[in-house]
Amino acid sequence: MTDFFDFINEQDMSLVTDFYELTMCASYLDNEKLELATFDLLIRNMPNNRSYFLFAGLEQVLLFLKNIRFTDKNIRYLRKQGFSTNFLGYLQNFKFTGDVWALPEGSIAFQNEPLIRITAPIIEAQIVETFLLNTVNLQTMIATKASRIVEAAKGKPVIEFGLRREHGLDAGMKVARCSFIAGCEGTSNVLAGKQYGIPLFGTMAHSFIMSYEKEIDAFRAFTKTFPNKTSLLIDTYDEIGGINNAILIAKELEKLGHKLGGVRLDSGNLAKTSKKIRKLLDNTDLAYVKIFASGDLDEFKITKLNEERAEIDFFGVGTKLGTSADRPYLDVIYKLCEIMHNKGIFSPIMKLSEAKTTFPGRKQVYRFKDGSGNFAYDMIGLDEESLTGESLLIKVMERGELIYNLPSITRIRNYAKASLQKLPAKYKQINTPQKYPVKLSQNLETLTRKLLIKLGKKG
Amino acid sequence: MTDFFDFINEQDMSLVTDFYELTMCASYLDNEKLELATFDLLIRNMPNNRSYFLFAGLEQVLLFLKNIRFTDKNIRYLRKQGFSTNFLGYLQNFKFTGDVWALPEGSIAFQNEPLIRITAPIIEAQIVETFLLNTVNLQTMIATKASRIVEAAKGKPVIEFGLRREHGLDAGMKVARCSFIAGCEGTSNVLAGKQYGIPLFGTMAHSFIMSYEKEIDAFRAFTKTFPNKTSLLIDTYDEIGGINNAILIAKELEKLGHKLGGVRLDSGNLAKTSKKIRKLLDNTDLAYVKIFASGDLDEFKITKLNEERAEIDFFGVGTKLGTSADRPYLDVIYKLCEIMHNKGIFSPIMKLSEAKTTFPGRKQVYRFKDGSGNFAYDMIGLDEESLTGESLLIKVMERGELIYNLPSITRIRNYAKASLQKLPAKYKQINTPQKYPVKLSQNLETLTRKLLIKLGKKG
Repeated sequence: MTDFFDFINEQDMSLVTDFYELTMCASYLDNEKLELATFDLLIRNMPNNRSYFLFAGLEQVLLFLKNIRFTDKNIRYLRKQGFSTNFLGYLQNFKFTGDVWALPEGSIAFQNEPLIRITAPIIEAQIVETFLLNTVNLQTMIATKASRIVEAAKGKPVIEFGLRREHGLDAGMKVARCSFIAGCEGTSNVLAGKQYGIPLFGTMAHSFIMSYEKEIDAFRAFTKTFPNKTSLLIDTYDEIGGINNAILIAKELEKLGHKLGGVRLDSGNLAKTSKKIRKLLDNTDLAYVKIFASGDLDEFKITKLNEERAEIDFFGVGTKLGTSADRPYLDVIYKLCEIMHNKGIFSPIMKLSEAKTTFPGRKQVYRFKDGSGNFAYDMIGLDEESLTGESLLIKVMERGELIYNLPSITRIRNYAKASLQKLPAKYKQINTPQKYPVKLSQNLETLTRKLLIKLGKKG
Repeated sequence: MTDFFDFINEQDMSLVTDFYELTMCASYLDNEKLELATFDLLIRNMPNNRSYFLFAGLEQVLLFLKNIRFTDKNIRYLRKQGFSTNFLGYLQNFKFTGDVWALPEGSIAFQNEPLIRITAPIIEAQIVETFLLNTVNLQTMIATKASRIVEAAKGKPVIEFGLRREHGLDAGMKVARCSFIAGCEGTSNVLAGKQYGIPLFGTMAHSFIMSYEKEIDAFRAFTKTFPNKTSLLIDTYDEIGGINNAILIAKELEKLGHKLGGVRLDSGNLAKTSKKIRKLLDNTDLAYVKIFASGDLDEFKITKLNEERAEIDFFGVGTKLGTSADRPYLDVIYKLCEIMHNKGIFSPIMKLSEAKTTFPGRKQVYRFKDGSGNFAYDMIGLDEESLTGESLLIKVMERGELIYNLPSITRIRNYAKASLQKLPAKYKQINTPQKYPVKLSQNLETLTRKLLIKLGKKG
């Protein structure tokens, strides 16, 4: 905690958790339940309007697992919550010592596939649950949404600028990160630009125009400061007046050896207006001036604009991207799938509740490809069976040590691009995409059936 | 920035901004445009399924305004982005020196009403825009959603536990804060408990049950550690088996002088199952054992459960609350409404774009009450006219100094409760509430009409 305001210190990350993780862990310890267990982090359902997930957030997960500690201050607070001295002593020496398998960031994944698999003493695996879910939910949700928007834009650059409507400051940072991973060309978020090396975009808001008596005075003032590659916002009063002023400015800039970068539309009928504006620009030898459009855009509206042959060169996408507005959460879950009950033997475990059944055992995701190397189908199987498909989960942490070189954001972005290219187009359509096949291996099916029968008798 | 991972230092808060705020400010400075301006922060539309806003986030806004500085590191990064030495020098000495008027947190507000009004040199007022919008959007959105959920619960306690699906860590903290302000009784978020003094709730997840061979062994182990007031999760395998095991445990606890707190249902038909369970508990003299329900709840489902006379004592609400899932953003905007053009005279300003027109001039919100002191209607008027209604905006900052005692979270919560009580029931219905009347004063209407005519001629 800080005096500045209630932001989160890195040392307090261990308390970014649901209270029940701590009560469960206190009881595990009290009952001397220290055996190894395996948990899967996965997304239960494929939401409407989605046909794949673009996995993101692993870097923050691994840095958390590597660094999680409980400070004396944290312990003092937990003491007041009534935890035993024994448990508080355990927390004081806490360090995550488990093995972690995961998909690389930028991987394509589907419902029910383990994205992260943790094997650790059950207390350690349990206590990290909430942080992991929070991190993967946000980042995978946004990367997925952003990749759909980039796909809809069909090669035209997309800029993320939803910071003002994103859910707090951490979301602002992570949305910029994941949107860039998913193929956006840049962000408006200055701190994300600094932190992640993402290109920054942005010129002016309506307030700048309105602060001058006349629109053209505002344009002139702005291009005086930024004479090169500036975009002028032309819809404060009316777009046609705005574009005529922008053309005047472009001509003034040409005389000074500069070029206007573009004009921006932020309201109205974007398809119709952009065509009018393109014609006016072309007719005045300003074919080089780009048209930037924004205003409540998402993958559906961009698809429609492209169908209407809107003359738009850049898309700025804010709220709908930054909040994943049509589906602002994923069904991320973290499920116990095996526990070492006796003498080093792991017992597979599953949950039976109505519509919430999970798959037992230590699992691997196998991906099968067609003749051209494109993704054909996935199979969720047991880790011990070695199926011929590519094994997607790789070992990233061993006994609490990071054994994986965290890739740069650019490498993750390239990997995401390559992965998306291998996903056939029919699975990437914006409207009514086909469902990608995710099968269960014979062995996993058999194990699941066996356990269902056994659980039927449980009491 | 930290080595731990890319969390945000308080010193970097100034960079949590859209890039265009900085380019605009650079141009204001370059053009020696240093005059005072007034900006309104408001919510343009009342979204579907909402009939009022519960305003929250002012504390974080004011601490930001009080503390915003640009560090040398920040300046170095901005230099690489091409800003002039003159502007960087300005930022190096930056301090917010404006006046701020705002509603107290916990106030009820409506569309188009200024929630925060800032008068400052235009650069200062502009540069803080993004942070203010981000903060008010998240907190007011969540406080509003949470207050609807609390309203739907009709006096039964609601606990917020959406951390795992909230959008990052800052959202996790702010959701807990605003839910508590809006009337929730507690949170699962341990760090929010520590930071804000919010009561913590939580016992066990399905994984705890599944880690034991038999459900009853898990119950016994947990109540060994926490013999008093524990809630047992009874739906891991099937609820009737679960409740029977819970009854056995309750009886064992009674013999030891303890009492079981409750049982929790997290899936299935909550109305039907809760009634069965209540009967079984009552028939075994366990009327004191409470029933806690969770699982995809929101104000609509809770209303339905109450209509079905579900026997539920506590509601746990996660994802739908923590992401405001049916409307994960508000139309928060920050609009220039006047600028000092000549010799200390402010000129009112408005924007004309289609469907995005704003109201000009320095405004105040006046609330009119009925004979019993309940809210009857609001009127947005000019600050200079003194209408008879209560003036809602109060001065909280003068020349950059905080002149307002930040109330404790408990005081804000009490104020929210009192405010909600004064809002007649017809405006608080969960389904199809009536629209609260928000009028414009005669003077504001006249000014708006005048400017519309003038803007029609602008070029």
